[in-house]
Amino acid sequence: MRGAVIHAPGDIRFETLDAPELLHPTDAIIRTAVTCVCGSDLWPYRGAEPIGDPHPMGHEYVGFVEEVGSEVTSVRPGQFVVGSFATSDNTCPNCRNGFQSNCLNREFMSTCQAEYVRIPNAQGTLVATDGVPGEESWPGLLAVSDVMGTGWWAADAAEVKPGSTAVVVGDGAVGLCAVIAAKEMGAERIIAMSRHEPRQKLAVEFGATDIVTTRGEEGVAQIKELTGGIGADSVLECVGTPEAMRQALHSARPGGTIGFVGVPHEVAIDGQELFFSHVGLRGGPAPVRRYLPDLINRVLTGAINPGKVFDLTLPLEQVAEGYQAMDERRAIKTLLKP
Amino acid sequence: MRGAVIHAPGDIRFETLDAPELLHPTDAIIRTAVTCVCGSDLWPYRGAEPIGDPHPMGHEYVGFVEEVGSEVTSVRPGQFVVGSFATSDNTCPNCRNGFQSNCLNREFMSTCQAEYVRIPNAQGTLVATDGVPGEESWPGLLAVSDVMGTGWWAADAAEVKPGSTAVVVGDGAVGLCAVIAAKEMGAERIIAMSRHEPRQKLAVEFGATDIVTTRGEEGVAQIKELTGGIGADSVLECVGTPEAMRQALHSARPGGTIGFVGVPHEVAIDGQELFFSHVGLRGGPAPVRRYLPDLINRVLTGAINPGKVFDLTLPLEQVAEGYQAMDERRAIKTLLKP
Repeated sequence: MRGAVIHAPGDIRFETLDAPELLHPTDAIIRTAVTCVCGSDLWPYRGAEPIGDPHPMGHEYVGFVEEVGSEVTSVRPGQFVVGSFATSDNTCPNCRNGFQSNCLNREFMSTCQAEYVRIPNAQGTLVATDGVPGEESWPGLLAVSDVMGTGWWAADAAEVKPGSTAVVVGDGAVGLCAVIAAKEMGAERIIAMSRHEPRQKLAVEFGATDIVTTRGEEGVAQIKELTGGIGADSVLECVGTPEAMRQALHSARPGGTIGFVGVPHEVAIDGQELFFSHVGLRGGPAPVRRYLPDLINRVLTGAINPGKVFDLTLPLEQVAEGYQAMDERRAIKTLLKP
Repeated sequence: MRGAVIHAPGDIRFETLDAPELLHPTDAIIRTAVTCVCGSDLWPYRGAEPIGDPHPMGHEYVGFVEEVGSEVTSVRPGQFVVGSFATSDNTCPNCRNGFQSNCLNREFMSTCQAEYVRIPNAQGTLVATDGVPGEESWPGLLAVSDVMGTGWWAADAAEVKPGSTAVVVGDGAVGLCAVIAAKEMGAERIIAMSRHEPRQKLAVEFGATDIVTTRGEEGVAQIKELTGGIGADSVLECVGTPEAMRQALHSARPGGTIGFVGVPHEVAIDGQELFFSHVGLRGGPAPVRRYLPDLINRVLTGAINPGKVFDLTLPLEQVAEGYQAMDERRAIKTLLKP
């Protein structure tokens, strides 16, 4: 079979690889229906994270079950399944507490930009749909496996409530999905921070009521102006840089809450500043598995359409161009078809 | 009138001062029933905070209304009142959001170790009891004005729920009151971290089910052992040092919550560590006003007895000895009687 392999910064190749096999009785093998490139894949692509030896890439997937290990009884060959980028047994204490992305047996997916994928912890990770959904819903279901699940977690961690005001920091695919989540959770005012016109348009389509195009203290001042001078109830930080975290902290009202879902890179939070702000803070890798049944249902009923974040679709063999388009900001997110 | 004045580290004097007067129509003057020394008063006393010119001290009080400004209608002369160390108008957006200690008109109290005290924002700050409560309940009501309110906030911010496990870091008056709060909120297991026998005894009396006497990674290992290997649902951080925050972060389970109520001194939180822990974090000066009616009621009905944290009672004129006893850890907390 064939799949993407990263060799060095900027060097993604589509190569022939060994087909995955069941390694444990808890594994499943799926045939990829669609996969995609994540904003976080750009960290190593841009040389901002070490690469080491050449290795496969990708952690988002929906597909058809090909084969299951002897301990997997919840899905069977032929079914269409959605999973999370973080696998989980869904039975350990952390899973039972709703933090499946901190499962004691967690393995992060990392080989999904390929025709076939091995899924560890398949029993707890995969959710099968009723029948095979139409191809038009595959992008939405694919989004659920990571970016939509992560946007939902941002809104959940930021405690978005009906009638509240939410600010979304970051206009990547996760930020845009966070707008969807804030809207679904009943936020009355959703302020998206974005400087890119196509993303602004999508944010508005997804439910943003206001767009703030400035950043830093100027951006904060604009948020304050839109929120009666005190700041927002909830801030959804979907980037992971020190600037974005600062933006979030200064945009939240006293006693407001930040959900932060971009992996922090060199972010440190000053204890005394956080203290006097009364702002609550929670983040982490999204516990997508907790939300899967609900989000799958919302996509299949048409309540949400997060598949729209894919503004470039390529055959899987053109994966390298998919990375490049995102790196150059020509695309928000690239869908790949095997 | 007479009151405490700090001149330099270790130098508290009981002096004759001008009697306070109404400065604004929103002020009230109270005659102090009892007041006390706070753990945070020890920061300047120990030279850990700058003192500047000699100035009065104290921010905890209960007393009798002497006089009210023309805009104060909620309390009247002769009534017994309890207030917060942070005054609030109780009408601004932050107050309405429940964060009265972030009131847009907030003034921190700072002259309460005295016979008479001016209370700014009296209308929103003071809560009168029904009639004059018996003297035996004054220590409990005094505790409510700060340490008990702060312990309650620690448990609230740490999202203590019925049946949950809570760890309390810090065995000062606030930490001990945090044990009371965790118990009242239904925590099934309350682990107090304490190395001082009299404080351990009081913690157990207040509801602690376990005492951990070790600190650092050893203390964390013990917490993990007591919590099925994963850590506590809630951690109440009642100190404010980097060591205490580290203890809290490592004692919480994935997805657990920390309430931190000791003013942080040189505390910085690593964004990536917080991220991968899934731990939620909220702190700040306690919004005592939010809890006052409820906590006053709990004290007057005998449901809680936070007045027990006062293990030394002195006449106000011996305030200097009150500080010294706490500094030398001969007393948990000193009650002062004018």
